[in-house]
Amino acid sequence: MMESAPNPGTAPPAATMPAGEYLARRLCEAGVGHLFGVPGDFNLTLLDTIAATGLLEWIGSPNELGAGYAADAYARRRGLGVVVTTYGVGELSGLNAVAGSAAESVPVLAITGSPATSSVRAGRLVHHTLADGVFNRFERVYSEVTIAQEVLTAEQAGQQIDAVLRAAIIARMPAYLSIPADLATTPVDVARLETPLLAQAALPVAEQVFVEAAAAVLAGAEHPVIIVGHIAARFHRAAEIVSLATAAGIPIVTQPSAKGHVDERHPLHAGVYAGDMVDPRTAKIVEAADAVIHLGTVMSDVLSGFWTDRPVDPVTIALTAQGAYIGGELVAALPFPQALRALHAAATGRTRTASFDPGPPVNDTYPNPGGDLTQATFWQTLQAWLPEHTALLADTGTSFWGALALTLPAGSDLTGQPIWNSIGYCLPATLGQAVADPGRRPVLVIGDGAAQMTVQDLSPIARCGLTPIVILLNNAGYTIERVLQSPDAGYNDIAPWPWPQVVGALTGGRVAVFSVKDLTGLRVALEAAHDLRTMSFIEVTLGRDDAPPLLRALAERSGAGK
Amino acid sequence: MMESAPNPGTAPPAATMPAGEYLARRLCEAGVGHLFGVPGDFNLTLLDTIAATGLLEWIGSPNELGAGYAADAYARRRGLGVVVTTYGVGELSGLNAVAGSAAESVPVLAITGSPATSSVRAGRLVHHTLADGVFNRFERVYSEVTIAQEVLTAEQAGQQIDAVLRAAIIARMPAYLSIPADLATTPVDVARLETPLLAQAALPVAEQVFVEAAAAVLAGAEHPVIIVGHIAARFHRAAEIVSLATAAGIPIVTQPSAKGHVDERHPLHAGVYAGDMVDPRTAKIVEAADAVIHLGTVMSDVLSGFWTDRPVDPVTIALTAQGAYIGGELVAALPFPQALRALHAAATGRTRTASFDPGPPVNDTYPNPGGDLTQATFWQTLQAWLPEHTALLADTGTSFWGALALTLPAGSDLTGQPIWNSIGYCLPATLGQAVADPGRRPVLVIGDGAAQMTVQDLSPIARCGLTPIVILLNNAGYTIERVLQSPDAGYNDIAPWPWPQVVGALTGGRVAVFSVKDLTGLRVALEAAHDLRTMSFIEVTLGRDDAPPLLRALAERSGAGK
Repeated sequence: MMESAPNPGTAPPAATMPAGEYLARRLCEAGVGHLFGVPGDFNLTLLDTIAATGLLEWIGSPNELGAGYAADAYARRRGLGVVVTTYGVGELSGLNAVAGSAAESVPVLAITGSPATSSVRAGRLVHHTLADGVFNRFERVYSEVTIAQEVLTAEQAGQQIDAVLRAAIIARMPAYLSIPADLATTPVDVARLETPLLAQAALPVAEQVFVEAAAAVLAGAEHPVIIVGHIAARFHRAAEIVSLATAAGIPIVTQPSAKGHVDERHPLHAGVYAGDMVDPRTAKIVEAADAVIHLGTVMSDVLSGFWTDRPVDPVTIALTAQGAYIGGELVAALPFPQALRALHAAATGRTRTASFDPGPPVNDTYPNPGGDLTQATFWQTLQAWLPEHTALLADTGTSFWGALALTLPAGSDLTGQPIWNSIGYCLPATLGQAVADPGRRPVLVIGDGAAQMTVQDLSPIARCGLTPIVILLNNAGYTIERVLQSPDAGYNDIAPWPWPQVVGALTGGRVAVFSVKDLTGLRVALEAAHDLRTMSFIEVTLGRDDAPPLLRALAERSGAGK
Repeated sequence: MMESAPNPGTAPPAATMPAGEYLARRLCEAGVGHLFGVPGDFNLTLLDTIAATGLLEWIGSPNELGAGYAADAYARRRGLGVVVTTYGVGELSGLNAVAGSAAESVPVLAITGSPATSSVRAGRLVHHTLADGVFNRFERVYSEVTIAQEVLTAEQAGQQIDAVLRAAIIARMPAYLSIPADLATTPVDVARLETPLLAQAALPVAEQVFVEAAAAVLAGAEHPVIIVGHIAARFHRAAEIVSLATAAGIPIVTQPSAKGHVDERHPLHAGVYAGDMVDPRTAKIVEAADAVIHLGTVMSDVLSGFWTDRPVDPVTIALTAQGAYIGGELVAALPFPQALRALHAAATGRTRTASFDPGPPVNDTYPNPGGDLTQATFWQTLQAWLPEHTALLADTGTSFWGALALTLPAGSDLTGQPIWNSIGYCLPATLGQAVADPGRRPVLVIGDGAAQMTVQDLSPIARCGLTPIVILLNNAGYTIERVLQSPDAGYNDIAPWPWPQVVGALTGGRVAVFSVKDLTGLRVALEAAHDLRTMSFIEVTLGRDDAPPLLRALAERSGAGK
């Protein structure tokens, strides 16, 4: 019929899709396959719209803090993670997780479903607000812990979605997207998808400037060293780093925050570097170096051994997420991957082989089974047992500081929070790790105080049929604080829980449970858990004041940092 | 010796006490006897200093969200509650609870232990920060949800402590106090304690202005009505309100947020008012009134029945925490208690008795035991069973909307979050309620989705030896969302938990557990729990789509509010 023929004087209407679908497609493009979160009335239309695409799997968590932690661990593996919450109540419950992502440089997109534009325009006193007609409070809150924030509009929805995704991915930092309930289905031009999300412009001039400046530092260096930090780990360039080190004959040390990102059994790996706190041999290699290449390092209190790290000097080359520095000055605003390529070019022509003290061989033997079960013998047992290709997660406290002293087997790395240090993180992180990286079995080590924070997150791990090995170090409270300051304070005691029953109940029995009180039992449990194909839980009872040596070293130094 | 003799030309040094002790003494003065919280390295000196005074009892929670919720419920009873967290990780985990206190007008002091002044001055990259040398982020975050914020200084510590306490107590709103680790022991002049924290100036002129203006409205009114909101409940003036109503012959209706603040069995009590949503009889009383006295009301979406409340007009008298209004205009900036006294004076001389439809008598009988166990018969059973002097807590969802339709027995009230609506609130709130108000036994009604949010808080309840009756409505997920929008969405399903085992494990077995699937079992369990002196847990299995009538009414209206 004539009425339906297009008017030749106007362009045909653009093909559109709902904003929720556009978001789902962009997330897929960025490597995301799962959403973590909790539904709430302001995000239901968004969730329904995304579900209709069939592109992303929803993984519900018991609460938003756990969902945020899971998204963080997922993002560390996949390059992007997503947590979806509802306005106010949900997004604020998840804030600590997103702040942790900011501190630890993790690209998480925090999406919140917010009140409809009509409510906002009218200044209505709706639930999940402070009932004062103010609707931008929580966006302001999130502006403190995210690198970009957008509240979706009908006019700019596509651009806004792309903007927060790009910002998060390029900077490896969290970003915030608030989607009003009525705009989850607002139309977005399909043609936008023809432009890749990350059409990265090469910067050949800047790259050449950096190549020449770095080459000048490296050319004469007899004993350079590479320090790998967690921002390098976020870019997943381990192969390129090892290739650079091998080609140019440079030993590699890793910060505690990047432990295992480069294979710790590689001949060029020279230990964990945190100033002079963790390993004197490693510290000596850095101190003696005549060129120091920082790849995404951060020198916070803990990571620098309380500022006993080597200061920046003229032979310091440093790459961050978006800049390449020499001697503390920005030489070129290059994205990390491009700067790393440039560094390889700068080192070309070096023919030296690395020469450094390789340290004593790793002791991979089990301790004498007749000895006591202590922090020392627990960690020596773990060293002997730890299988290759393990994703080890160690929560803040005795767990992290014990794990830090391990030499990890091939294909294994350590996930923790040495900057943000929020206890309880690693339990929900185990969910995110397992979903993101199904080829490696997670081993979680966590204290009882930390596990009480986020214990309900055992439930989605079991519900998803995941099979981590969870090792609970039960030392009757917050031992890290007993070591740091207050050995006998009552506030460090927590309610004793019958952990086998707790874990059995929260997982619906889908777990093999072991309770061990001696070294033989520990080894038997670890080996049985290894052979089982189910989720396993091992409770290890340890002395309330027993701590790994590195935690004691931390405590000695931390007084000054307070 | 001469050297130690005071110089007659200078005043003797003032007697001082550590800031932590000063804070403890001021909190006692304000009626606080307990602190809720989680220790962390930046607050340990504060906790040690407070513990040394012996004035306050420490109640540790498994995580900060629970501690904040407990402090909120405590504050509702005691007039002030305190939650203590550590910097960053702790305070952000507790933020949702404090935002809820702001939305619901609850005076909670959120104290955080923060990095030492030396770290802040040096801009150090310490843990629990974003490792960027910025130390005022979280204070800014808290400025969005608190009425006053102070970061303690050595020079002004006493004044600052007094300022946040006064602000919170006078406005009935949360406030924020950050105490650097090195300043927990900074000296405060003991003499400050001689001035009472709340030396309230009377405002006789303003009071007289309001008395005359209110008297003019009330003098000719034949059918006035009083609407009691939650801000009135925060001031604990129920006796004065009833006295006013009795003297002046005025019926009282209550908002859902203040249900039970005035005895629902009192002959002047005329029901729950939320526009025309909850009770048509009550709505009719308000609509027909020729003077409407709002005592601390807030007309949010839920509380106003989605703005079907009677609009402000010339015969509207309204008291807020700090102001007295007529016809929507501020007449006098009077604190609520003083304005209420003035209102009583304004009504003196009225000799009318209240005349209103008292409604049908309350049906306090048990339902036919042969009937099905449904939302309808569950709530009728609770109506029949509910003992006098019960502190009823009902979480957001079917629990709150079922409880709202009850007629509470004498000495009973309802705690919930009808403005903020954060599911999971009421479980930790039960801890705070029980500690604050040991004379009344708490009865908690909560859904399974809500209970999974904060389930670990069963532990401190049991550890403290408290004896609430916890009723879990198990409907296999987020039924409120199924009713609101998405009856079949997978994201509303949650992992099924074996609740009796979960509760047994988390309480260390210090609980009597009942699982009921029919009406006879329910009544037997309730009566047994009533007779027992232990904590009791009753799991009630209900249909996944079954909902109380008021929740269906809410769902019908909420679409427009999105």
